[in-house]
Amino acid sequence: MRAVMYKGKEAMVVEDVPKPTIQDPLDAIVRVTTTAICGSDLHLWHGRVPLPPGFSFTVGHEFVGVVEEVGDKVIDFKPGDRIVVAFNTSCGRCFYCKRRMPSQCERGQIFGFGQLNGTQAEHVRVPLVDTSCERIPDDLTDEQAIFVGDIFSTGFFGAENGEIKPGDSVAVVGCGPVGIFAQMSARLFGAAQVIALDMVPERLELAEQAGSIPVDVSKTNAQAEVRRRTAGRGADVVIEAVGNFKALESAFSYVRKGGVISVVGVYVEPEFPLPIGRFWGQNLTLKAGVCNTKNYMAQLIPLIQQRKVDLTKIVSHTLPLEQAPQGYRHFAEHTNRTTKVLLKP
Amino acid sequence: MRAVMYKGKEAMVVEDVPKPTIQDPLDAIVRVTTTAICGSDLHLWHGRVPLPPGFSFTVGHEFVGVVEEVGDKVIDFKPGDRIVVAFNTSCGRCFYCKRRMPSQCERGQIFGFGQLNGTQAEHVRVPLVDTSCERIPDDLTDEQAIFVGDIFSTGFFGAENGEIKPGDSVAVVGCGPVGIFAQMSARLFGAAQVIALDMVPERLELAEQAGSIPVDVSKTNAQAEVRRRTAGRGADVVIEAVGNFKALESAFSYVRKGGVISVVGVYVEPEFPLPIGRFWGQNLTLKAGVCNTKNYMAQLIPLIQQRKVDLTKIVSHTLPLEQAPQGYRHFAEHTNRTTKVLLKP
Amino acid sequence: MRAVMYKGKEAMVVEDVPKPTIQDPLDAIVRVTTTAICGSDLHLWHGRVPLPPGFSFTVGHEFVGVVEEVGDKVIDFKPGDRIVVAFNTSCGRCFYCKRRMPSQCERGQIFGFGQLNGTQAEHVRVPLVDTSCERIPDDLTDEQAIFVGDIFSTGFFGAENGEIKPGDSVAVVGCGPVGIFAQMSARLFGAAQVIALDMVPERLELAEQAGSIPVDVSKTNAQAEVRRRTAGRGADVVIEAVGNFKALESAFSYVRKGGVISVVGVYVEPEFPLPIGRFWGQNLTLKAGVCNTKNYMAQLIPLIQQRKVDLTKIVSHTLPLEQAPQGYRHFAEHTNRTTKVLLKP
Amino acid sequence: MRAVMYKGKEAMVVEDVPKPTIQDPLDAIVRVTTTAICGSDLHLWHGRVPLPPGFSFTVGHEFVGVVEEVGDKVIDFKPGDRIVVAFNTSCGRCFYCKRRMPSQCERGQIFGFGQLNGTQAEHVRVPLVDTSCERIPDDLTDEQAIFVGDIFSTGFFGAENGEIKPGDSVAVVGCGPVGIFAQMSARLFGAAQVIALDMVPERLELAEQAGSIPVDVSKTNAQAEVRRRTAGRGADVVIEAVGNFKALESAFSYVRKGGVISVVGVYVEPEFPLPIGRFWGQNLTLKAGVCNTKNYMAQLIPLIQQRKVDLTKIVSHTLPLEQAPQGYRHFAEHTNRTTKVLLKP
Repeated sequence: MRAVMYKGKEAMVVEDVPKPTIQDPLDAIVRVTTTAICGSDLHLWHGRVPLPPGFSFTVGHEFVGVVEEVGDKVIDFKPGDRIVVAFNTSCGRCFYCKRRMPSQCERGQIFGFGQLNGTQAEHVRVPLVDTSCERIPDDLTDEQAIFVGDIFSTGFFGAENGEIKPGDSVAVVGCGPVGIFAQMSARLFGAAQVIALDMVPERLELAEQAGSIPVDVSKTNAQAEVRRRTAGRGADVVIEAVGNFKALESAFSYVRKGGVISVVGVYVEPEFPLPIGRFWGQNLTLKAGVCNTKNYMAQLIPLIQQRKVDLTKIVSHTLPLEQAPQGYRHFAEHTNRTTKVLLKP
Repeated sequence: MRAVMYKGKEAMVVEDVPKPTIQDPLDAIVRVTTTAICGSDLHLWHGRVPLPPGFSFTVGHEFVGVVEEVGDKVIDFKPGDRIVVAFNTSCGRCFYCKRRMPSQCERGQIFGFGQLNGTQAEHVRVPLVDTSCERIPDDLTDEQAIFVGDIFSTGFFGAENGEIKPGDSVAVVGCGPVGIFAQMSARLFGAAQVIALDMVPERLELAEQAGSIPVDVSKTNAQAEVRRRTAGRGADVVIEAVGNFKALESAFSYVRKGGVISVVGVYVEPEFPLPIGRFWGQNLTLKAGVCNTKNYMAQLIPLIQQRKVDLTKIVSHTLPLEQAPQGYRHFAEHTNRTTKVLLKP
Repeated sequence: MRAVMYKGKEAMVVEDVPKPTIQDPLDAIVRVTTTAICGSDLHLWHGRVPLPPGFSFTVGHEFVGVVEEVGDKVIDFKPGDRIVVAFNTSCGRCFYCKRRMPSQCERGQIFGFGQLNGTQAEHVRVPLVDTSCERIPDDLTDEQAIFVGDIFSTGFFGAENGEIKPGDSVAVVGCGPVGIFAQMSARLFGAAQVIALDMVPERLELAEQAGSIPVDVSKTNAQAEVRRRTAGRGADVVIEAVGNFKALESAFSYVRKGGVISVVGVYVEPEFPLPIGRFWGQNLTLKAGVCNTKNYMAQLIPLIQQRKVDLTKIVSHTLPLEQAPQGYRHFAEHTNRTTKVLLKP
Repeated sequence: MRAVMYKGKEAMVVEDVPKPTIQDPLDAIVRVTTTAICGSDLHLWHGRVPLPPGFSFTVGHEFVGVVEEVGDKVIDFKPGDRIVVAFNTSCGRCFYCKRRMPSQCERGQIFGFGQLNGTQAEHVRVPLVDTSCERIPDDLTDEQAIFVGDIFSTGFFGAENGEIKPGDSVAVVGCGPVGIFAQMSARLFGAAQVIALDMVPERLELAEQAGSIPVDVSKTNAQAEVRRRTAGRGADVVIEAVGNFKALESAFSYVRKGGVISVVGVYVEPEFPLPIGRFWGQNLTLKAGVCNTKNYMAQLIPLIQQRKVDLTKIVSHTLPLEQAPQGYRHFAEHTNRTTKVLLKP
């Protein structure tokens, strides 16, 4: 089958690879109908993930598809089922899963980073299928359903971690796909205003379309702007959806006393210089983490069905799988007004 | 000064009464700029509140106004301040206020039911002013601000008590002013769908404008309709915003197993036949109560300022105080397409 | 094998019945090492459960045992595993299980009430074994472990539903096994005082040993006593652990304004006359339900291991299975100082 | 009157100073009956707080006393009232107080750090008295009541911020007075085990008496010990009650994936090297802050009255005010088995 392979920095190549097969009685083999390029795939593209030279593997972790085959112990799914799958599998029965932290599952794996096969492919093996995915309702297209498996859940997780209450002012650092979905999610928790910070024009346009107040950090004193809109105090909640130190530092400049900083940006660096004196003196809270996607999928699907969120607005390009390399380049370089790329195997 | 007086069943009369004066060092005297007729005032109109014959008093409890005079121990307010006042005063320091239950305040009183003076008048005495009201921001009109003092808070309280989570299906029994605001509030907690139940056409129209799914209970099998829209299970949360046994019984028919029934309708009857076998067997929760308005006013004002809710849509008539009797009759009898009446003293 | 059979009112008989066999790939067959007579079994004994004449079945739902055989799709358990099982099975994947309400599981069943085989037997078939039980740590005896499968979980569930906060005053109606465990659980949530209401001397003694304040309702004006100990207000939280109307009425007499009544007593009656006027006017909350045992088992086991609760104190008698009939009679009639009976098959 | 004055590093001197007088209509003058030396006073003693040379002021912030005089706008208190006062005053009506964050009050001040007068004195001026203190019940001694105004509240705040649930394993870094009270508080939230880390023998003894598992970090591999007692995972919640980088680093070594680190230790340093990669990858939460004491005082007093906590156990010495300097030295140097010093003016 055809699949997108990581071959090194800025090298994603579509190649022939063997079709996956059942390896464990809880596995399913799924025919991918739609997959996507995620911001976290760009960490590979940019060479930020430390990997041995020559190490090559199939990539991708966002997808929907149709079950083709299941292992002997699978209970809930059968060939023909149309499913959306969490980017990280989970067992549903370990210490962490019982406490609703599937992202820390003792048996969980992430698709497409060298360990488990990637989903930018014609077929994918899905371990722990019973506890890692949801059936897609008939009234939802692939495009509507795909994002609950990763970036919509992640944006929502960021908003939920922020403990947003109706009436709150929320600042979201970053208007990439996760940032936009965090903004939509902040609205679901009743935010009175969502201030969206970025510097890429087409991303700020998406933020505005989503009902946020766009602030171009390259043209404005963003800290002053956040304070101006919050009676001088700062935002009640800040969601950091970028994943670098500059973004995290700015989050501290936007938050008010007693506020929460919720981080969903990906961090691989060792140590961030936390302003601990202020952190303690102003009663701040910092939460970060990998989305517990499995917790949210069934909860979020009705919001899509009832048109309370329109997730497809962020999709700028839908390409055949063979054009994945071009999709990667445009998404990574913010060219061709690329905000989100879907791939069709 | 002129004031609306309760004179008995279906008898509300505008008369001259003495202007109130400071009686306690925590009092303020407020010039009323806008007041309203509330659904709970209609309990008086309909003669449902047991009162001694010949007992007469000023009525009304929803209002905004301007402070004219304050007592010696008032800290936060001064003549000229424009304020919105909770329908029930509270002290901020008793056992209940400390636990954020101002509706059960040991020193609290309700305006306009015979104990404390009513607000459908040119002036009103406001006890415990420091802990019973909020300043109105300059960018809000009287019409935008008035409802946080009673019916918007009450609708929001109903939604909050319902413990609505994003993605939930919510049924609201009743599309009167409180019901409509409960529906708007359910959206603020992320409801995927709000099913609005009533039989008055103009109320159902308001519900639809507010984004709810209107269901005319006089023309539809409402229980079947709720179940059809919730995969056969019933609503996750039901808010009862009417206040009679038929409404409360219907709430039990709409709720799913493990669901919450949140009652904001006013009850004076002694005993409701609770289906205790089902209540226990299906793990239901019942909450009811008088709104803790003071808790919500500061929280809700930003949502009005940021246009996340448009409260003024429910107002069908704004009348001079002298026309209060006509306002009462139309509101009570659902005539003249009357959904909410404001009064200008 | 030998098993306790329901034969009608006050007729529990030990008889030979066929040993159960695997019927579904998610089943296990478990050899029972310890089982117990539960207060809810007494509903059968007393003839309160409407059943067709001549209908006979194995009874019992509290037990621990050792896995002997598992079905083809069982993942987590294997022969030899020592387990404690919830009194109600659950699938872990339906709408209700996903929302952490296994007591409402779409595939769940209760042991020993005529539908699913009872556990007062030498062997028992356990459906959905992967999602209905927990492994017993080696440092716990059967006697220490058995109650997390039903009555300790249920007492804890009652306390959790009560939303007890540190410093609260809690009244518990009933000092039967569930009542005693509700009292211990109230302490785990930080109750400043737990007032225990009953009239059976040996039960009140157990309450006192558990750190509660015993109140004999047959000798004291219990409402006055609760108020005297709560500054005249009533208890912040009342847990009703009896299951009859007199008990539930008394709960309303003990609760303060704004308080919570949490019901874990079993109700089969149709309609309780709820004091709705007071319920609304005093902002009360009523919760009732069947324990979501599966949620609590892994959480509660460490409290037993660390000796934070001593559950075995309630056990007054441990009998061979053959003597179950005597155990039933003494437990039902409060004779022989019987507070809890374990049975050894 | 006599008062303890800060004169520089390791220089606390008892001197004559003018008796304070009412300066604002919300003030009270209180005669101090018992005051205490707090761990945070030692920051002054050790010269850790940057202050201008020659700057001298009265110190102390923990105390109980009797009201002698009140300002014109005081409502709740009158001469003769026996009160316990929060170490930080708050107004009860600003943005932060309305959101239950009195520690961030816009009008709040801390006693005894150079701004507001200290309480290690015969009299003290208490601003905002209505909203900064609680009446002491007659059945509590000064010694029983004093700690709710600072260190018991702070320990409880640390435990509450930790979001401890019944059954959790909690590690507390530090067995000073706040650490001991955090451990007692962890029990109030139902911790199955509390692991107490310190290296001072008499502090570890107090921890053991409080029901904690003492671990001497100078003699044991504490990280290994915490993991051994938590099935290799680490503690569900870690409370950091010391206030230096070594302590905070150790907190990260004790916490499990998905856990919470709650910091109540005082930090004046600028930047702590936060392990952000692990923090994100393991879904950690960090909370820190100054205790919102006013929120807790009324809640915690019943726990003392009902003997659910015995706070006086930590007091090793009660000295006349004139011996404050000796008390400081012994407390600072861990000599004379000094765990907590009360002062009697």
